[in-house]
Amino acid sequence: MRYSNIFFKKRKKIFLLDLLKNLKIKNKKNYKNVLINDIQNLNEALNKDITFFHSLKYKDLLKVTKSNFIITTSKLSSHLPKTKTKLIVDNVLLSVAKITEYIYPDSLNDKYEKKFISIDKKIYKNVNFGSNVILGENVKIGKNSHIGHNSIIESNVKIGNNCNIGSNVIIKKAIIGNNVSILDGAIIGKKGFGFFPNKNNNIQYPHIGIVIIGNNVEVGCNNTIDRGSLSNTIIGSNSFLDNQVHIAHNVKIGKNCIITGQVGFAGSSSIGNNVMIGGQAGISGHLKIGNNVKIGGGSGVVKNIPDNAKVMGYPAKDIKKFIMDNK
Amino acid sequence: MRYSNIFFKKRKKIFLLDLLKNLKIKNKKNYKNVLINDIQNLNEALNKDITFFHSLKYKDLLKVTKSNFIITTSKLSSHLPKTKTKLIVDNVLLSVAKITEYIYPDSLNDKYEKKFISIDKKIYKNVNFGSNVILGENVKIGKNSHIGHNSIIESNVKIGNNCNIGSNVIIKKAIIGNNVSILDGAIIGKKGFGFFPNKNNNIQYPHIGIVIIGNNVEVGCNNTIDRGSLSNTIIGSNSFLDNQVHIAHNVKIGKNCIITGQVGFAGSSSIGNNVMIGGQAGISGHLKIGNNVKIGGGSGVVKNIPDNAKVMGYPAKDIKKFIMDNK
Amino acid sequence: MRYSNIFFKKRKKIFLLDLLKNLKIKNKKNYKNVLINDIQNLNEALNKDITFFHSLKYKDLLKVTKSNFIITTSKLSSHLPKTKTKLIVDNVLLSVAKITEYIYPDSLNDKYEKKFISIDKKIYKNVNFGSNVILGENVKIGKNSHIGHNSIIESNVKIGNNCNIGSNVIIKKAIIGNNVSILDGAIIGKKGFGFFPNKNNNIQYPHIGIVIIGNNVEVGCNNTIDRGSLSNTIIGSNSFLDNQVHIAHNVKIGKNCIITGQVGFAGSSSIGNNVMIGGQAGISGHLKIGNNVKIGGGSGVVKNIPDNAKVMGYPAKDIKKFIMDNK
Repeated sequence: MRYSNIFFKKRKKIFLLDLLKNLKIKNKKNYKNVLINDIQNLNEALNKDITFFHSLKYKDLLKVTKSNFIITTSKLSSHLPKTKTKLIVDNVLLSVAKITEYIYPDSLNDKYEKKFISIDKKIYKNVNFGSNVILGENVKIGKNSHIGHNSIIESNVKIGNNCNIGSNVIIKKAIIGNNVSILDGAIIGKKGFGFFPNKNNNIQYPHIGIVIIGNNVEVGCNNTIDRGSLSNTIIGSNSFLDNQVHIAHNVKIGKNCIITGQVGFAGSSSIGNNVMIGGQAGISGHLKIGNNVKIGGGSGVVKNIPDNAKVMGYPAKDIKKFIMDNK
Repeated sequence: MRYSNIFFKKRKKIFLLDLLKNLKIKNKKNYKNVLINDIQNLNEALNKDITFFHSLKYKDLLKVTKSNFIITTSKLSSHLPKTKTKLIVDNVLLSVAKITEYIYPDSLNDKYEKKFISIDKKIYKNVNFGSNVILGENVKIGKNSHIGHNSIIESNVKIGNNCNIGSNVIIKKAIIGNNVSILDGAIIGKKGFGFFPNKNNNIQYPHIGIVIIGNNVEVGCNNTIDRGSLSNTIIGSNSFLDNQVHIAHNVKIGKNCIITGQVGFAGSSSIGNNVMIGGQAGISGHLKIGNNVKIGGGSGVVKNIPDNAKVMGYPAKDIKKFIMDNK
Repeated sequence: MRYSNIFFKKRKKIFLLDLLKNLKIKNKKNYKNVLINDIQNLNEALNKDITFFHSLKYKDLLKVTKSNFIITTSKLSSHLPKTKTKLIVDNVLLSVAKITEYIYPDSLNDKYEKKFISIDKKIYKNVNFGSNVILGENVKIGKNSHIGHNSIIESNVKIGNNCNIGSNVIIKKAIIGNNVSILDGAIIGKKGFGFFPNKNNNIQYPHIGIVIIGNNVEVGCNNTIDRGSLSNTIIGSNSFLDNQVHIAHNVKIGKNCIITGQVGFAGSSSIGNNVMIGGQAGISGHLKIGNNVKIGGGSGVVKNIPDNAKVMGYPAKDIKKFIMDNK
């Protein structure tokens, strides 16, 4: 079971035929009575899950995926193993969005949560609550944790022991470890900035991923950390984020990272362990930043960076070259 | 009538002589008993409005303005049509500020609003309010709209149908269309960052413009969108703004634009339709960005950009040149 | 007495021996019964204070310091005057952190403040409070000041006369002058982003400095201004800060400065008077920016700038050179 099931109600019995209802797919009747469990990425899908293949970048995952039902385009379909069922569509990601929304009917609802409880001091006897805290249902908070004034913790969020949640903080769709500080004004777990541009009426992409924060993490004031679309947004243990940092959907940040003020991450990049990033640097989407990398302040990173590299500049390059070029 | 009249109380009977009281203007007695209706830009001014001419950039508008009373400098006054009454001052914008403040006596007051109502569920029967929402007087909210916890909507704001206002949001001096999402922590309608630098005591510029947001717009978390000074700040329909975007006074953003995280706009620039702007890009003030323009992440745009151009860099240049230069 | 004593409880009787307890220092018994008053920088330390010398940059201050007890490394110790007592450690700043925490036992606690009072209208009879304001103990607020809805003012904060504190503002460990505007969503006085990186468990640096804001200052929406570590973070009189500005610990900003949207300051830089900084510029740490300096929007400043200079670029250089280089 995926974490997001705690946060997003999954439809109970999912017939493949219903899933494909709004898609133009041939020979639908072959799929009568086929049941689907979930939608997942190629590498995470299990036997009864539906998955998708939309870019040659993920070709190698076709060999290992356990899923039997793969949404793809006519053009890409020749790469699929013959044992798999091809579901040919015009636009893979748009189809995935529709299917995700069918499986998780509430996944597009990102309004403020209406359900909130009156805090039962017996259940939360080892938690310190400030004034005017709003708590959803089934929120788990470890002992000796503190939730500041006016903060909002939506249903099913888990917060570990010895955590320090500041004031005016909003947390939804998130699992947070022990000894974590989430400082004032941070907003965690909002849906990512993902949609299909469409004249006069953009189509929202459902976000069923969550935010997972390890132990000993510090998240600075007024940070925004969006939840994942299919996979999760992750902040590794002992990583510290300064104020006004923005982390988009699906970003994975490793352990022991230091991210200084106003740094921004576009979606789906993964950052190694022990990475240091100077103030106002920006990391483009879908990149892989290695371990022990140092990125100078103000840099604009637009390509992958190998382990142990030190880079600076816009676009970012080896720091020695940057210094030489700017002498 | 201008929109801002809903938000800023206008003095009732405005004699030109009173308006000029604090300005050193010759032959004031000629203007005895002349009544003025409002202050407006050259192109928006009507017959009974006072207007101003402070830069040759706006020379062409002198031919079309309907106003008869034009504040300008001695140096610029030769450009004025002979039929117009010249009001010669040393500092045009400072004079405009004083006149604006005279016409709109509350225009410099930007304190939190003291008036707020207890929400009458009969009036707002189709609106969902979170906990601790603060509502000013005469706020109009369409049906099936949601206002999150702790949000503050000041007097006379209009919000359309099917809107999703998050939590900890502050909205003042704004008119918002249908199907609009204003996400958590966004602050809309604050006066712009406009003032006359003055040793030890800067002089604030009155802001009587408002923020106008079209239909199907999304405004991200912790955004700041300032209201206009004389004209309005505008976000066109179906434009989507990611988190931590900053939009200064008088900026006009077209339709179907995509503005990603941490982008910033200085004052008074106008952005066309279908414009995409990558993360952390900055747009200088008083620029004209065409339609269908693409601006790469991290760019610093310091001059006008024609329709259909793709630019990147600091300063921003044609993206092909940027790629070549950084090979 | 330092300002921070109002905000951080100081241990009463401090024996040097206790202070050194957790440090590996030779001949500790020599210090039996020696009493210490406080810990201070070299230039601010008085006769009974302990101080430290960790970088040759501060060599000249060794001649003027009034302190007799100086923490330093074996390598640096030869620079100390013979009259001073050398306290040799491996890591000066880590030792200073431990000593600071010993002297100020609450200095690492940055949780939301639990103590808050019910507002006595007799004490605050000339102050306008919005709804749901949270006030700590001994908060001083001058007459004709306004505190917006949901704002939190922690204990011992001082706010002058005619101040305009917006809504959703958080202020702690700060002293604020007269006629100051702190706009919606600003967060002032949080501990700085200072710690000793340590695998799996970073060690926090205690912050006993405060934020001092002069008269006639404007702090924009969603700004974050961190308090100092040993010294203070200072915003000079009549300086105006636009929205989404980030100011790290120990930064000193002079008078009459104009700091536009999304500018960021790394720690410990000092900025002169009459400085103008364009949008999204970043100022690295430990720099000295002179008086009357102009820094173009988007610049990345990585070295000191003399008085009256105009710079732009990343890295920032003379603006004429920037324009030439980008023709």
